Amino acid sequence: MEYPSKLIEDAVNEVAKLPGIGKKTALRLVLHLVKEGQHKTTALTEALNQLRSQIRFCVTCHNISDEEECGICKSHRRDKSVLCVVEDTQDVMAIENTAQFTGIYHVLGGVISPMNGVGPSDLKIDSLVSRVMSPDSQIKEIILALSPTMEGDTTSFYINRKLSALPLKITSIARGVPVGGDLEYADEITLGRSILGRTLFN
Amino acid sequence: MEYPSKLIEDAVNEVAKLPGIGKKTALRLVLHLVKEGQHKTTALTEALNQLRSQIRFCVTCHNISDEEECGICKSHRRDKSVLCVVEDTQDVMAIENTAQFTGIYHVLGGVISPMNGVGPSDLKIDSLVSRVMSPDSQIKEIILALSPTMEGDTTSFYINRKLSALPLKITSIARGVPVGGDLEYADEITLGRSILGRTLFN
Repeated sequence: MEYPSKLIEDAVNEVAKLPGIGKKTALRLVLHLVKEGQHKTTALTEALNQLRSQIRFCVTCHNISDEEECGICKSHRRDKSVLCVVEDTQDVMAIENTAQFTGIYHVLGGVISPMNGVGPSDLKIDSLVSRVMSPDSQIKEIILALSPTMEGDTTSFYINRKLSALPLKITSIARGVPVGGDLEYADEITLGRSILGRTLFN
Repeated sequence: MEYPSKLIEDAVNEVAKLPGIGKKTALRLVLHLVKEGQHKTTALTEALNQLRSQIRFCVTCHNISDEEECGICKSHRRDKSVLCVVEDTQDVMAIENTAQFTGIYHVLGGVISPMNGVGPSDLKIDSLVSRVMSPDSQIKEIILALSPTMEGDTTSFYINRKLSALPLKITSIARGVPVGGDLEYADEITLGRSILGRTLFN
């Protein structure tokens, strides 16, 4: 596509680098900013710049945080004996939204993915091990809450092997048919796992 | 939704102001920027800020331009006797992509929409009239290429009334069934217009 201006082209190219945004959507967003007052663009870019330059990560669980230690790690009302291992911040938010978990988290920052060049050393796995092994650790159970994908499973196996020598209960979130889902549309692996992992009916 | 950080929340709120971007997409984009290096955010925000502060509009046709007069208006290879009236830059790009039009443009910057508080004076209609009436104007035909919506039609009628006293041919782009579209799915107004506006078969 030919753009009427080099400035538009540069801006479209930058916006289109964002995930899930193509050139056409990028152009629509960019032309929206051109149409609006300049203060709108300034507000947007300032929020993004501030975010990127001032963002901090909790020293304990590595979740995004405004302070040195995040609200969950600092809280006295959280159960410090159960630790949930997740891939990223969005997973913490998703689990917090369920209001079913009162323990603490550990954010890996990704999953092992040789295809994308992500090895165990790129993740906060060593930090997890030393956190569990620290003398003042109260952790009794580790819940592995990673995505049920090849990469997620690989990461779970790796963490399990690293921690298996320690006196810990290591669990994984249940795999089964989604609530509200129709049984006949569930794939055979999910359905098979849901039969293997059947639970007592009340 | 509760965000782990005020910085994230502010950035999400700003990004979610963009058209077609909800809070969930905004969060995904913002967390993507957090994950990438800081230079990516800087490149994005600089491109947007430069765009917004340096963007110029062609003095003749009001399309976005890097110079005082845009490439189309300056070109000696364009037919200066046919002027196509469009709503915005995206329409110019869409028509240029068809490679079917060799004339010049006039970008209104919107359509008359009382619901959104846009009146004729907010658009470049007066500029169109004076452009047509200028002594060195070569314009013989005006093509109204506005969207086939209530607002677009209102704007076309208004412009037609303003220009009807002048010795000009005023045309409108054809309304009919889209190429590749299935006749049975065309709405009755479009189908009716395509019958009224039928053309000679070869």
